[in-house]
Amino acid sequence: MTQRRLLLILVPTVAVSVMLFCHRALAQPAHNPVVIRLAELEIDAAQLNAYTAALSEEIDASIGLEPGVLTLYAVSIKDRPAQIRLFEMYRDDAAYRSHLQTPHFLRYKAAVTAGMVKSLTLLETEPVRLGSKSLVK
Amino acid sequence: MTQRRLLLILVPTVAVSVMLFCHRALAQPAHNPVVIRLAELEIDAAQLNAYTAALSEEIDASIGLEPGVLTLYAVSIKDRPAQIRLFEMYRDDAAYRSHLQTPHFLRYKAAVTAGMVKSLTLLETEPVRLGSKSLVK
Repeated sequence: MTQRRLLLILVPTVAVSVMLFCHRALAQPAHNPVVIRLAELEIDAAQLNAYTAALSEEIDASIGLEPGVLTLYAVSIKDRPAQIRLFEMYRDDAAYRSHLQTPHFLRYKAAVTAGMVKSLTLLETEPVRLGSKSLVK
Repeated sequence: MTQRRLLLILVPTVAVSVMLFCHRALAQPAHNPVVIRLAELEIDAAQLNAYTAALSEEIDASIGLEPGVLTLYAVSIKDRPAQIRLFEMYRDDAAYRSHLQTPHFLRYKAAVTAGMVKSLTLLETEPVRLGSKSLVK
């Protein structure tokens, strides 16, 4: 009876510990930190509509098809619509590298390199604090 | 019997239509578009730890306490940790203005104006495409 009681305590305790450990391990992969990049672009004003259409299509495909692409926020500076800023968040470096090989990204890149983009600055970053009401912290 | 059958069809149809209309009205408020702002800061390197602590505290309080603060992402440029970039998303203009009056924001602002921040550029933006795995689209 004492042994049974001990089992009744031990088994759930071990089970919960294992679950917590796994959850923590999955939630915070030590070797695969989230990858965050910023891009600053100046677009040829005459091709702005075509560019934003290509960009929007690329964003929708990436978010819809790639599990590792967490966030692609594209905004333009107010009163300077040809100045585009991107905030990009990937699950890890492998997800980012895989993204660069997808057909939708290569199609977008072809449009970009076809002369729509007058300048492009890519910035690698380190997270300081990522606060969001969303699921992605 | 025919009248009863008609009611059986009509009542759920009207109920679902009203629910869909309300959901749409709540989900996409026509007069309160999301407000997105970017901030580019250069921090005094000697005070960087104190600044990021104040910033993190402010972000946690804003996301935790203010329903209208959707996203506050803070990153630093790789290898230039004193270069901070913020991506800020508010539910609407009222939420942004309310945020500026909160005790936690005013406390952060006091720290900022105490000489930690060497330069600050605030940029208003227009959304182009906001793609995210999160709840906030």
